[in-house]
Amino acid sequence: MSPPVTDLAPTSIQAYGAHAGDQPLVPLQITRRAPGPHDVQIEIAFCGVCHSDIHQVRSEWAGTLYPCVPGHEIVGRVSAVGAHVEGFAAGDLVGVGCIVDSCQHCADCDSGLENYCDAMVGTYNSPTPDAPGHTLGGYSQRIVVHERYVLRIRHPEAQLAAVAPLLCAGITTYSPLRHWKVGPGQKVGVVGIGGLGHMGVKLAHAMGARVVAFTTSASKRKAAFALGADEVVVSRNEDEMAAHKKSLDFILDTVAAPHELDAFVKLLKRDGAMVLVGAPASPHPSPNVLQLIMRRRTIAGSMIGGIPETQEMLDFCAEHGIVADIELIRAEQINEAYARMLAGDVKYRFVIDSASLG
Amino acid sequence: MSPPVTDLAPTSIQAYGAHAGDQPLVPLQITRRAPGPHDVQIEIAFCGVCHSDIHQVRSEWAGTLYPCVPGHEIVGRVSAVGAHVEGFAAGDLVGVGCIVDSCQHCADCDSGLENYCDAMVGTYNSPTPDAPGHTLGGYSQRIVVHERYVLRIRHPEAQLAAVAPLLCAGITTYSPLRHWKVGPGQKVGVVGIGGLGHMGVKLAHAMGARVVAFTTSASKRKAAFALGADEVVVSRNEDEMAAHKKSLDFILDTVAAPHELDAFVKLLKRDGAMVLVGAPASPHPSPNVLQLIMRRRTIAGSMIGGIPETQEMLDFCAEHGIVADIELIRAEQINEAYARMLAGDVKYRFVIDSASLG
Repeated sequence: MSPPVTDLAPTSIQAYGAHAGDQPLVPLQITRRAPGPHDVQIEIAFCGVCHSDIHQVRSEWAGTLYPCVPGHEIVGRVSAVGAHVEGFAAGDLVGVGCIVDSCQHCADCDSGLENYCDAMVGTYNSPTPDAPGHTLGGYSQRIVVHERYVLRIRHPEAQLAAVAPLLCAGITTYSPLRHWKVGPGQKVGVVGIGGLGHMGVKLAHAMGARVVAFTTSASKRKAAFALGADEVVVSRNEDEMAAHKKSLDFILDTVAAPHELDAFVKLLKRDGAMVLVGAPASPHPSPNVLQLIMRRRTIAGSMIGGIPETQEMLDFCAEHGIVADIELIRAEQINEAYARMLAGDVKYRFVIDSASLG
Repeated sequence: MSPPVTDLAPTSIQAYGAHAGDQPLVPLQITRRAPGPHDVQIEIAFCGVCHSDIHQVRSEWAGTLYPCVPGHEIVGRVSAVGAHVEGFAAGDLVGVGCIVDSCQHCADCDSGLENYCDAMVGTYNSPTPDAPGHTLGGYSQRIVVHERYVLRIRHPEAQLAAVAPLLCAGITTYSPLRHWKVGPGQKVGVVGIGGLGHMGVKLAHAMGARVVAFTTSASKRKAAFALGADEVVVSRNEDEMAAHKKSLDFILDTVAAPHELDAFVKLLKRDGAMVLVGAPASPHPSPNVLQLIMRRRTIAGSMIGGIPETQEMLDFCAEHGIVADIELIRAEQINEAYARMLAGDVKYRFVIDSASLG
């Protein structure tokens, strides 16, 4: 246990964020609260760059508050803890994902599903008593978070940068794979081989399933095999798709761009489920209900994961040697990184080296 | 056991059917095969009238074969059995639903889910070696069916006419309620209070759930309470809908007409499922994926039920005194009955008295 924190003044730190939706990200100074009795203060080492960051900072979703400092794939080292914190001490390697608070007493919170709590506080752009009144994310040097939402990292420190994307891309794909009980003897599809999808392939493979990766780009075939796919299907190729008709137990669809769901639903067995983890900006074509009825198939959604399951995922990844495939960038490269992400030019996750903020 | 059948000639019987999609149903003569070793010959007493009958006979679905004799809610009495039939004997009260054959050896058949077998043979309009090359349904005096697809009826004989609709409307609603484990302590919605929906309300109520009936017609409110609904919501009334936000464990949507699914999805709790049993002729508006993601909700489909579950449903209904609410008609009233069904003017199922065919 670390000694209790005595300096109760907020601290001013460096961050990267935007002042408006049509402006690039720039260096900012923000403040972090001094740790309260249950808080953990973390010096951020790395922060992954998620597609959500782009949507939020560019005001493509409703309600972006400025200045906006994105980032919810945070890893670093504990520098101080509050008087009542027992699970963490200064020097620990820890992570923070998409959630920094919740009501802590509803049925969802009681089930460790803080991600579905109505009062869930996102790591950025959510209401908070701290200045400036909304949460500011991980494109910054430091963060102060209630201990409940801090995760322990058991990977070797050398892998720390590549662990960062597990905090969102990892749990977002791990949670539905676990909830729908993916495992040995199953054939599992992963649609879209990007930031989320590349984790989906690695995780489903590690869970013992036979993994079929679906991509629109023939050029991604080799890379998908390298991630652990047993088969790779170019989804524009009808013959390749037809070969998997009614054969998949589960499909994880990571593609947020509007696309035809029926082409994948048809590949599900009886009682198979396709789970969507990306919300399209405009609706997908309406799925064919008859395709659901005729084989009792399911289309469902899943959003990140709860805190206990995020810890389980991190431990599972540490045990199986799983990290994200990343490209490390300096903070000042963030606008360029966004442009490359939108062009699909990243394998598979940018991670900001927080040392570059200093 | 009945004595083995010795007369192997097909028999000619009276039926009601159509010669083309744009023609009314008229009296027809059709033939039924003599019972083979595993066949049960049934003198039909009553046959329910399903919406599917209208779609198929009017060629509103692809591939209607003429002459078309609809009907898959069949009840009657066994008049003869094949040499190897052990489970049925002449005089038994029995039923036949939507399925009269299947491959009998696939994973679905082995699981008693003949309804999902790729080679499932429907009670009408499916290929058969019998004349005229496609199956002819229950708007007829007699039917000959493999024993596997014959159900035992344990209701009092006086209820026989009202049992008929259980063979499709009953099992179509019972199967998803059971598969998704509806029971005490749950709040369950049933959307659409028609032939299927009125059975859904009765069954969900008998399973111990708190039932919320959703209807577009305020005029159906009283009748829905009478069926067993604990609450009735007029779905056009936004305030009534909003009162149930995030509160339902399960929704059975029996409405085939295209409609907004989101209004109901929003009423599901986390992990809630909405199951569709009707396929719309044109697509529903595309569901909002974010509504699925944010609470890990499911939209699924379900199609009738397997033979063992159909027997279970019949036994459950016999035990709980459940039958359909019906209006008995003579065969020659069928065209008028179709017109009334399309106008929503039936509470809740027409049933043909097969004696009127003689």
